[in-house]
Amino acid sequence: MLSTIGDLGEFGLIERVTARFPGTDDVILGPGDDAAVIKAPDQRVVATTDMLVEGRHFRRDWSTPRDIGHKAVAQNVADIEAMGARPTALLIALGVPTDLPVAWADEFAAGVADECGASGGAVVGGDTVRSEVLTVSVTALGDLGGRAAVRRDGARPGDVLAVAGRLGLSAAGLALLERGLDDPAACVREHRRPRPPYSEGERAARLGATAMLDISDGLVQDLGHICAASGVAVDLESAALVPPPELRAAAELLAADPVGLMLAGGEDHALAATFPADTELPEEWTRIGTVTPERTGAAGAAVTVDGRPSEAAGWRHFG
Amino acid sequence: MLSTIGDLGEFGLIERVTARFPGTDDVILGPGDDAAVIKAPDQRVVATTDMLVEGRHFRRDWSTPRDIGHKAVAQNVADIEAMGARPTALLIALGVPTDLPVAWADEFAAGVADECGASGGAVVGGDTVRSEVLTVSVTALGDLGGRAAVRRDGARPGDVLAVAGRLGLSAAGLALLERGLDDPAACVREHRRPRPPYSEGERAARLGATAMLDISDGLVQDLGHICAASGVAVDLESAALVPPPELRAAAELLAADPVGLMLAGGEDHALAATFPADTELPEEWTRIGTVTPERTGAAGAAVTVDGRPSEAAGWRHFG
Repeated sequence: MLSTIGDLGEFGLIERVTARFPGTDDVILGPGDDAAVIKAPDQRVVATTDMLVEGRHFRRDWSTPRDIGHKAVAQNVADIEAMGARPTALLIALGVPTDLPVAWADEFAAGVADECGASGGAVVGGDTVRSEVLTVSVTALGDLGGRAAVRRDGARPGDVLAVAGRLGLSAAGLALLERGLDDPAACVREHRRPRPPYSEGERAARLGATAMLDISDGLVQDLGHICAASGVAVDLESAALVPPPELRAAAELLAADPVGLMLAGGEDHALAATFPADTELPEEWTRIGTVTPERTGAAGAAVTVDGRPSEAAGWRHFG
Repeated sequence: MLSTIGDLGEFGLIERVTARFPGTDDVILGPGDDAAVIKAPDQRVVATTDMLVEGRHFRRDWSTPRDIGHKAVAQNVADIEAMGARPTALLIALGVPTDLPVAWADEFAAGVADECGASGGAVVGGDTVRSEVLTVSVTALGDLGGRAAVRRDGARPGDVLAVAGRLGLSAAGLALLERGLDDPAACVREHRRPRPPYSEGERAARLGATAMLDISDGLVQDLGHICAASGVAVDLESAALVPPPELRAAAELLAADPVGLMLAGGEDHALAATFPADTELPEEWTRIGTVTPERTGAAGAAVTVDGRPSEAAGWRHFG
């Protein structure tokens, strides 16, 4: 009976886990060789990487291994979507303590496989090594389908700003868990398994989005990147930031401002994009503000709400 | 004065380190957006990932940060070369303790940049996160230039087996460091900064290599993968395994068999490939054996030396 990763060994673990990952039409050569080979139909490939570390990005007592598998895939695929691309492939490196139960790896792999199924990407390779700290490093690849990449530097004054996906639920979920609560369940679930708006990045690109990014550190903080790269400012309309009932309920429990959670909360992996003013937005995209000329000087906050600087600070790395 | 990564913060660290990485002709969009965009001229991309963990794959008292930067790139690029591909791009995720000196990150980035220059790949993206255990996760991408990938499953009885690069020096260097020795310097240097035979993977593919891999766990162990995938066996010729003087000197100090180090030592990241018998091998490739029909049954060792089973065991992960 193999109960820990140490008993199973690296090759045993790889064989066991790999069996869970089906190929797709994008995969020419999957796991098992020195490297994988993936289709890149338009002669370009989009690539991004993220590392998740236990205690920093997840806790084993707050998230199941399946949750962590889902989340690791989702947050990387969101970065591919944010370029206007379709995810094609993922590579997953795992640093694992030798006493990690094999069942943990099985469940993690199941979460990865499920989220890949939802996003359309295939696991094509990876690495497993021993580490005292459980660490998941994911690289995602994508295909632009002949379109230009939607970068952060194309927003122009007069563009509308819109978001697809959820805002604030994950931050509320984390704050609830920190207080020993697991209700409202919708918020906690969003923290454990964020659901980026798959395929909306590609759709935004088709609609002519001028700039786009994935909201991982908080709406205000991340919009600051578009402002800096594009040389613009953004004014959000508070009336458009409508907290859903589960977020209002969580905010009440937390004695927090629900709109503040929407402005500062990260990790929902919603997409924010700017579009030409005359774009007809589909219902998945909610208009929340306008791009304005860059403001300079001491009063020059890049992101304002109803014309006033926002207090909302996002996630501070190494903070 | 910013002396630690904690003082600098994630974005400061990224900005500081990114400045060191020049683009290449393969890079359409480098670091700074949600994802990078890289050329994939033949509509396919080769991809591999490896994780290095402090205490397991390197020690800060045995390797400089520059060494570790070199090694992280080299071992990933070797996997790209082993498919017969040319490296194009790398993504690097770093898990760092907050008390890590900024100078460490600077030197690490310098090593990465130097090794990228040697290998031809460009750093196009990455991630930095906080971790109690210093962790480096690298993904490398490559281009096959219209050729078929050289997999592990194409070796046929009658093929010749050849290697490019070094064998045994890195293992000897590690054993020396474990005994508090740093001479013969050539072996220790090879452990700290392995030098894969860049561009020889692509050349082997052009020469018609039928199977190829990167030797990371030890010659005998890794050749076992070719045997298993191709349904063949391999007989090595001990007369062709000639230890260089620095390896003989190290073996004497270690009271070890120098040929044993060549058979079992990993991490030099030499390439092993099989070729049709009539292939004219360039001098960078040394013929060391022959592919034979698969041997089955109890006496059926996949890899033999002069017809006899080898005792050489390679690197055992999680061992």
